[in-house]
Amino acid sequence: MNELLHDNERIDQLYSNDIKIIQNPNVFSFSLDAVLLANFAKLPFKQQSKAVDLCSGNGAVGMFMSHKTKGEIIEVELQDKLADMAKRSIILNGLQKHVKIINDDLSNFKKYLNKDSIDVITCNPPYFPNLETSKKNPNKYLAVARHEITTNLGEIMSASSELLKTHAKIFLVYRPDRLTELMESMLKYGIAPKKLQFIYPRKNKDSNMVLVEGINRGKKSGMKILPPIFTYKDDTNDYSDFIREILYGK
Amino acid sequence: MNELLHDNERIDQLYSNDIKIIQNPNVFSFSLDAVLLANFAKLPFKQQSKAVDLCSGNGAVGMFMSHKTKGEIIEVELQDKLADMAKRSIILNGLQKHVKIINDDLSNFKKYLNKDSIDVITCNPPYFPNLETSKKNPNKYLAVARHEITTNLGEIMSASSELLKTHAKIFLVYRPDRLTELMESMLKYGIAPKKLQFIYPRKNKDSNMVLVEGINRGKKSGMKILPPIFTYKDDTNDYSDFIREILYGK
Repeated sequence: MNELLHDNERIDQLYSNDIKIIQNPNVFSFSLDAVLLANFAKLPFKQQSKAVDLCSGNGAVGMFMSHKTKGEIIEVELQDKLADMAKRSIILNGLQKHVKIINDDLSNFKKYLNKDSIDVITCNPPYFPNLETSKKNPNKYLAVARHEITTNLGEIMSASSELLKTHAKIFLVYRPDRLTELMESMLKYGIAPKKLQFIYPRKNKDSNMVLVEGINRGKKSGMKILPPIFTYKDDTNDYSDFIREILYGK
Repeated sequence: MNELLHDNERIDQLYSNDIKIIQNPNVFSFSLDAVLLANFAKLPFKQQSKAVDLCSGNGAVGMFMSHKTKGEIIEVELQDKLADMAKRSIILNGLQKHVKIINDDLSNFKKYLNKDSIDVITCNPPYFPNLETSKKNPNKYLAVARHEITTNLGEIMSASSELLKTHAKIFLVYRPDRLTELMESMLKYGIAPKKLQFIYPRKNKDSNMVLVEGINRGKKSGMKILPPIFTYKDDTNDYSDFIREILYGK
């Protein structure tokens, strides 16, 4: 048993880049969203660069994309238990010099980071609005990760637009059913949505995930809709070649 | 030679629904956009219903969808020459009782139509902004049809939101590179984008067309991204089954 593991935890590996993530299904597990977002994000390679992953949960996104840069990756996670899992995963992967974690509310970003100093932001925001009526997960950790309880799109975009340099990029993964609100919120804080890539489970199904690239203080025109991604091969339950590759490598 | 035809004109047929359209390549020809939009639009079948097609060019969209309703279809086109072609196509198809044409600027809609009286609006708007720098077509007819010279998104959405009944729908075909401006303009006039369907030439290509369904005075959440449409079969120059079917029938 690995000494970094606590009760009910296990280690899951992303084979495509050999990263090990401490998971606890009772608290939070990374899923395909995180893998797709880390694959989608473009990071400057240089050592002086700074990337920030907001709402980082158990830190999967930041670690999955750590091979893309020699710069610093800063993960921001409010929930102590998840931030602690992320810290131990960072050690497990020997990434201590490369990936840091800030265990605080993202709206306190000014305590740790300078305005206009960040080259890239990534974020897998909570998907569901914090409505009384929404069927919230009774598990507090999962509820906070999935519902807009402790943060919301407005706070994320407001912090991002202050942190990002001019024309620096944000990469997001989100649910299509709130795409309008997402785009509106980006625009409200001066972040122009520039690329959308839709993930469809199969050819004849509605999209269930969307990857979004935005540019801070960018122009509104020039949207690109990248080629569709299918999760599964036609009528099978096998992952498509694209998904297999980002999960297991070539 | 058909007596309804003028110089340089020809008759093109949409085989899937047996509609004949008078075309003049020097002035305006309908293209796949119009066929896709007419196929995408949902019209109430009942005789008392009213649908309006804005920016209707040579009237293709309105005639292509005329089999979907027993109600009235009103086409609005500013350019005399195009409206005249549409009029003759309506006669050619024997649709005089069913499809009408208003040859005027759409911003004058109040002269012809009541507020809150329309069940469905369709529109294939000019795609390109009217910038000095944009490479406008030297052909005046094509320039007006493709560039925002005589109308723009704001005018189209403003008129649509006034004309449409509450929760009545608008169906649009547009270019993805201005999707942000389109959605922003819809929202500005209280029309919520509700469904998007992207057309990709092939599996590995960016989308080059988008179909949009909006609801007048609707809620912002609940966007659906419908299954992707491919124009061509994989690596061939043959139309996909979907496109073949809407062009040539089953």
